[in-house]
Amino acid sequence: MADDIPPSSFVLEEILSQDTRTKTLVLLGTAGPDRARAILIAEKTAFAINGLAPGTAFAADALADLRLLDHNDVYRWFMATAKQDVDAAPAVKLSLICPASDTHVRKYSRQRRRMIVETPELYRTVVAPYVERMRGDRITWVYNILSHKVEVDRIVHENPDPDTGFILLPDLKWDRTTMEALYLVAIVHTHSITSMRDLNKSHLPFLRSMRAEIVGAVETKYGVSRDLLRMYVHYQPSYYHFHIHVTHIDHDMLESVAAGRAVLYDSIVAQLESMSDEHYGFANSTLSYYVGENSELWASGFSAVADHF
Amino acid sequence: MADDIPPSSFVLEEILSQDTRTKTLVLLGTAGPDRARAILIAEKTAFAINGLAPGTAFAADALADLRLLDHNDVYRWFMATAKQDVDAAPAVKLSLICPASDTHVRKYSRQRRRMIVETPELYRTVVAPYVERMRGDRITWVYNILSHKVEVDRIVHENPDPDTGFILLPDLKWDRTTMEALYLVAIVHTHSITSMRDLNKSHLPFLRSMRAEIVGAVETKYGVSRDLLRMYVHYQPSYYHFHIHVTHIDHDMLESVAAGRAVLYDSIVAQLESMSDEHYGFANSTLSYYVGENSELWASGFSAVADHF
Repeated sequence: MADDIPPSSFVLEEILSQDTRTKTLVLLGTAGPDRARAILIAEKTAFAINGLAPGTAFAADALADLRLLDHNDVYRWFMATAKQDVDAAPAVKLSLICPASDTHVRKYSRQRRRMIVETPELYRTVVAPYVERMRGDRITWVYNILSHKVEVDRIVHENPDPDTGFILLPDLKWDRTTMEALYLVAIVHTHSITSMRDLNKSHLPFLRSMRAEIVGAVETKYGVSRDLLRMYVHYQPSYYHFHIHVTHIDHDMLESVAAGRAVLYDSIVAQLESMSDEHYGFANSTLSYYVGENSELWASGFSAVADHF
Repeated sequence: MADDIPPSSFVLEEILSQDTRTKTLVLLGTAGPDRARAILIAEKTAFAINGLAPGTAFAADALADLRLLDHNDVYRWFMATAKQDVDAAPAVKLSLICPASDTHVRKYSRQRRRMIVETPELYRTVVAPYVERMRGDRITWVYNILSHKVEVDRIVHENPDPDTGFILLPDLKWDRTTMEALYLVAIVHTHSITSMRDLNKSHLPFLRSMRAEIVGAVETKYGVSRDLLRMYVHYQPSYYHFHIHVTHIDHDMLESVAAGRAVLYDSIVAQLESMSDEHYGFANSTLSYYVGENSELWASGFSAVADHF
């Protein structure tokens, strides 16, 4: 029986998340005669383009009231209401989960992000001890790949040198078919680089030769040329063994490539080239990025020093 | 006169692009009494969450008609219409560009991207002449803002110093209500900086004091603290007068914040700090980014030298 829990019975307790880009809202509350815990997901509908033939008047056909907000030169901005009909032209899609489990709540909860300005000192005192804890057993799966214990048949290219070598293989999120969604990862053999923080000018020959090898392997294997590749690292990374994301430039991956999380590989090389300090590299730099408040890193120290920012 | 070209006069010729994730539609056609070429950009609004306090009934308050689509176990799906009002609860944001230039049409048409590795030499020979052409009349609208000819009432903060001053104002894509979608732009008064390419170590005091002023103004006016702000610039920018995007960290803007387009403001400051060269700054760096194949920049020279990459 679905009619026993109408959305109109939903009473809000908390906004779990909101996405202004996709126009989505996830609410936690109670619903139904038993006031059971419920999650209500509301999403605006996309514009219907079926009826949009050349010669039609879009605003006149699809919109109702119009209000001019502002104008400047050739630009004009308006707000409008839409002509709507729950069957032919609905405005909102709703999903109601009731009763909602703890797993449902965790899945739909969005953590707040915080921008971090990580000075060299903050790295040494707060981040480095965290990085140390995240290595060893936590990344056994990385060592398994590097030692050919697993995923050997997926390797696209390998340079076996223990200091300057790496393994290039498809990310598991890629279907290995759609070239516009190409997504590979290059994992270095050396255990001496946990993240871009550890890079300095002495790594430049290594970084340049690895870039050339990756570009060549991708071109040979997939026919995708260098100027269609977006190569980047994450800072902070999700695991502390240096690795590079190699993706097709047309593959839009909102979170993965966002400024504050992703740094272009070519930008890392260029920054090292322009650095005055021959010895320390990024160890002497201030790095800015965001973390989630639910992350272990935030819990392990940043929240305590947040006043410093 | 903005009223002379109402959106209702827009007649469709072609759908330039559509994004069902962001609920955005870009249409090419003609508008106004002269049937000038026009681009109409329609985007659904995000849900307003200001009035969403615990205890409120979201569906009953915000929605009108409801229709059950399907149900399965604890899941129920509905379509709905929204209660709307062009002033208090609009459904659609419209931008009308009329008359639209060839550059406008190319900018909003779907296109393949290309990664560019812009060396100092490539900047001087290909990009700098392009930047020169893009200034002057092409950015009259920027000068209109800086000289208080338009949008004066929208100014959030101004430092009037001609060399180190700037104007901070809401981007027109922001509804000025939803704090999680906060989007401001800081436009510098000086005409001497076209983009981050022109920045060098001598700009550091200016960049640091502008950051402090922006952060302070946003905190005072909107109560949004520094660690919830993502400040970045675009390279290449869409117009060649130095400006900074100031957005809420929870506002996901795929294209605008992507690595290869966006560079964190704090990263620019950190890179300048670590640079060895006192005189040239980014003029001596290699900058990597992507452009669309329809862009004037690609057409004006990169495609010809693409073999070099």
